[in-house]
Amino acid sequence: MSQYRVLIDADDEKGLVYKVSTVFYNNDLNILSNSEFVDKDNNKFFMRSVVDGEIALDKLKQLIVEILPSNANVKVIEPKKKNIIIMVTKEMHALGDILIRHEADELEANILAVVSNYDELESLVGKFGIPFITISHIDLSRDEHESKVLECLAQFKDVDYIVLAKYMRILTPKFVEVYENKIINIHHSFLPAFIGSNPYKQAYDRGVKIIGATSHFVNNNLDEGPIIAQEVIRVDHAYSWRDMQRSGKDAEKVVLSHAIKLALEDRIFVFANKTVIF
Amino acid sequence: MSQYRVLIDADDEKGLVYKVSTVFYNNDLNILSNSEFVDKDNNKFFMRSVVDGEIALDKLKQLIVEILPSNANVKVIEPKKKNIIIMVTKEMHALGDILIRHEADELEANILAVVSNYDELESLVGKFGIPFITISHIDLSRDEHESKVLECLAQFKDVDYIVLAKYMRILTPKFVEVYENKIINIHHSFLPAFIGSNPYKQAYDRGVKIIGATSHFVNNNLDEGPIIAQEVIRVDHAYSWRDMQRSGKDAEKVVLSHAIKLALEDRIFVFANKTVIF
Amino acid sequence: MSQYRVLIDADDEKGLVYKVSTVFYNNDLNILSNSEFVDKDNNKFFMRSVVDGEIALDKLKQLIVEILPSNANVKVIEPKKKNIIIMVTKEMHALGDILIRHEADELEANILAVVSNYDELESLVGKFGIPFITISHIDLSRDEHESKVLECLAQFKDVDYIVLAKYMRILTPKFVEVYENKIINIHHSFLPAFIGSNPYKQAYDRGVKIIGATSHFVNNNLDEGPIIAQEVIRVDHAYSWRDMQRSGKDAEKVVLSHAIKLALEDRIFVFANKTVIF
Amino acid sequence: MSQYRVLIDADDEKGLVYKVSTVFYNNDLNILSNSEFVDKDNNKFFMRSVVDGEIALDKLKQLIVEILPSNANVKVIEPKKKNIIIMVTKEMHALGDILIRHEADELEANILAVVSNYDELESLVGKFGIPFITISHIDLSRDEHESKVLECLAQFKDVDYIVLAKYMRILTPKFVEVYENKIINIHHSFLPAFIGSNPYKQAYDRGVKIIGATSHFVNNNLDEGPIIAQEVIRVDHAYSWRDMQRSGKDAEKVVLSHAIKLALEDRIFVFANKTVIF
Repeated sequence: MSQYRVLIDADDEKGLVYKVSTVFYNNDLNILSNSEFVDKDNNKFFMRSVVDGEIALDKLKQLIVEILPSNANVKVIEPKKKNIIIMVTKEMHALGDILIRHEADELEANILAVVSNYDELESLVGKFGIPFITISHIDLSRDEHESKVLECLAQFKDVDYIVLAKYMRILTPKFVEVYENKIINIHHSFLPAFIGSNPYKQAYDRGVKIIGATSHFVNNNLDEGPIIAQEVIRVDHAYSWRDMQRSGKDAEKVVLSHAIKLALEDRIFVFANKTVIF
Repeated sequence: MSQYRVLIDADDEKGLVYKVSTVFYNNDLNILSNSEFVDKDNNKFFMRSVVDGEIALDKLKQLIVEILPSNANVKVIEPKKKNIIIMVTKEMHALGDILIRHEADELEANILAVVSNYDELESLVGKFGIPFITISHIDLSRDEHESKVLECLAQFKDVDYIVLAKYMRILTPKFVEVYENKIINIHHSFLPAFIGSNPYKQAYDRGVKIIGATSHFVNNNLDEGPIIAQEVIRVDHAYSWRDMQRSGKDAEKVVLSHAIKLALEDRIFVFANKTVIF
Repeated sequence: MSQYRVLIDADDEKGLVYKVSTVFYNNDLNILSNSEFVDKDNNKFFMRSVVDGEIALDKLKQLIVEILPSNANVKVIEPKKKNIIIMVTKEMHALGDILIRHEADELEANILAVVSNYDELESLVGKFGIPFITISHIDLSRDEHESKVLECLAQFKDVDYIVLAKYMRILTPKFVEVYENKIINIHHSFLPAFIGSNPYKQAYDRGVKIIGATSHFVNNNLDEGPIIAQEVIRVDHAYSWRDMQRSGKDAEKVVLSHAIKLALEDRIFVFANKTVIF
Repeated sequence: MSQYRVLIDADDEKGLVYKVSTVFYNNDLNILSNSEFVDKDNNKFFMRSVVDGEIALDKLKQLIVEILPSNANVKVIEPKKKNIIIMVTKEMHALGDILIRHEADELEANILAVVSNYDELESLVGKFGIPFITISHIDLSRDEHESKVLECLAQFKDVDYIVLAKYMRILTPKFVEVYENKIINIHHSFLPAFIGSNPYKQAYDRGVKIIGATSHFVNNNLDEGPIIAQEVIRVDHAYSWRDMQRSGKDAEKVVLSHAIKLALEDRIFVFANKTVIF
């Protein structure tokens, strides 16, 4: 008895649900959960099913691919721990939250390593028996530093996601291309407000009454990738921007851990720079 | 070209989605949206589809009934305005919100009448050209008063929902039986906390930091019917119970209007004293 | 026995609280509530006290002014209904919410008139016996139209606040100058995200997971005045921009009514394009 | 130059603010922040000021005590790390969040020890170099076990707070008396709903749409002490009670860490089984 997550996206047309459920029915698969959505603007169909039964993964995938139009993307995934690498700079809160969840066995993930341009967090990561790799950017150009990081990451096989847990350096298109839709970032602002540096200072100067944090995939334009999750926190005039920053950390870690969980459970589709989340 | 909402609940078994989607496919129906849920504790399957195509309502219903197990409940509904009656006592906020939404044509509903045991709100309702019926409870026993109300309601044909917009009298099982799962109430508390009278005073005395409101169907036990929606509002030590009551009104009207909207769009299943909402 | 709201802002220095409380104490005034805040960046002190006792308003003000440094701004206000004018275009929800609150006597305000560039809402306003004035902008330049509006408003004495309840025209600096910090607007977005027209469409295109609304005072730059209150609503991929717009209306009316309440209760200080709210 | 937190509660009467601010003024103290509240039901005055200047702590306290009525409680506290002991059973999330905040130096606290009736969390605590003490309850009566715990705690001097981070045993009145208003608990429910064991199962059975968590001081009646903070999370019909439990953990850790922060910053007054929080 195996369990599979079936993810399909395709140009919408009549009969897609019928066709997929025919495969499930004919192969005596039990549907544990089922979600569909049609993006009418783009005429795009999305479906995520969790099924169990007696069938091999490859066989199931083949049967679905055969019955669907050729434009369909079909993934059949067996639930198991995914491999992630975390990148950080100096701040502890987002990384710490992930490490504790990992230690509590709440995450469907192996943390292969934590990579940083500083060594401030080495001691924390070491406590949990996870490799910590420092790749300093000092005296290096952006390209040189990034090449060293890419080289380092390349030694890890089957990396499913790179998690930027407050990694404070901008990635170049070259880097992003290698890990397309695999890099999950947290931006310490309620995007698209306050794009760029020190959003808490920007928010303070603007006198907003709510601040937020956004987790998103990284694409070529800084802070403009598909949004996965957002969280907000109420503030008032008594908050300095440092207070906002402090409070914002709670939103940041919540929103990043939430995005990681969605990714590990294969719940996210990316299309047209947006996400469909089941 | 007609549009239908198809609502199905049944004991769960393999092939239900397949069978229903087969009917849709064979009859060339387009699925506009589709939601399913299996309550594993009760082995119960729920499905709501919105489809359009060239088929008569009765024909579609018959085809689905035929293909499903005999325990299945099937509803096929053509979207149109439903008939509602609103019951109130003296407070204006929840009623007012419904009237404005009705006036703005935001509700898929005809308001047949507003019924009250007082005449305080007659002037407001009159402005909107909606019949207002006062049935005073003064000098009447609970049974006598309720019989008069039931008699009054009975003159209206095809009442889909009775909305209790801060109707402050307890309904007897006799009343509730007549309109099973058709009476939508708002309770001015975050149920099941503070059941009973003056929940704001209770909340104040307990020193809570968040208050709430709950919309639910009414069943025989006061405040214990299936919950449709809940809303919360933060308070602090500076709130008197009157302040909580005042702030609570905003949660009350939001949560009631939300429940009405869900009901009018046929999005609510009731099972095991709980709701499944698509 | 009179009740007063005392509002003070001044350059911060030692002894301000002492000096003000000395006046209260020497005149046997009872402090009902008291809030202070120091904006350290701008070295600015803000204080709002509610007191009661046997003293004339002018006398109390004079005593406070005398004891404070000359840069202090002192207001002593007797709580009473303020005069507001509401400006609208065609949408009903924000106006409707205000009218119902007014009818329920929840607002410390007289609504002198509703002014619009269309007559769509005349019927609704008429129900409540409030003057509705249509000043069409058709065939007029922006300046001509605005001059007519200003002329119209000028006939109302002692206007405390102009409330823009989805008034969809941009006001010129000339207009804003006349009613500085007296114009309360609602922007249908979580400012400063999505400044400008059709923010719901912008939000939809960006794929955000939370939308919002902002009430603020209007200054010379569109959408950039001091923020009074903000509210958010969660959305997901299934929301079209029309759905966002529909849901957003609830946030809009809540946030506008909240801002009006704060203004009517003299709880807002404006400084450095931000608000301090007690 | 010293900084002090001045906390005063007293029966309300005219002139309290005047008297305290006179002391501040005469001693050339600078008010950094100032909060007051009068509980009119109980005629009780609360005040928290943060001041700095050149004065000894004892001197400042004496001056304030002298000028206030004899019923006033006056605390003058110099900000410094407080001593806390954490008690846990087996769950990691709340403890983990505190340990990370402690490691990140976000808490004004020394963690003297973590005490548990199981050793499951010993390894985690050990990583952070904090003493972990297991006091098994196996084969002991409640009283015997508690006596051993009390004995253990007694060896620590100057314990400011005992934090129950999911300590799953009920404390007797004897225990609570020793640490009155010093024990901070987290209850995994939105109190007062679902008092008692397995509140998530209760919430699931009731079909609620929002779940929550509550941090509170512990008094003699289980789950009935003064509430410090509450947090809520939206759920829907698709949540099993295990899902609610999992999601609830995020609310639990947020609400507990928030309560700890408020306590460490001396922001909480307890009166009449409620809290006043500045």
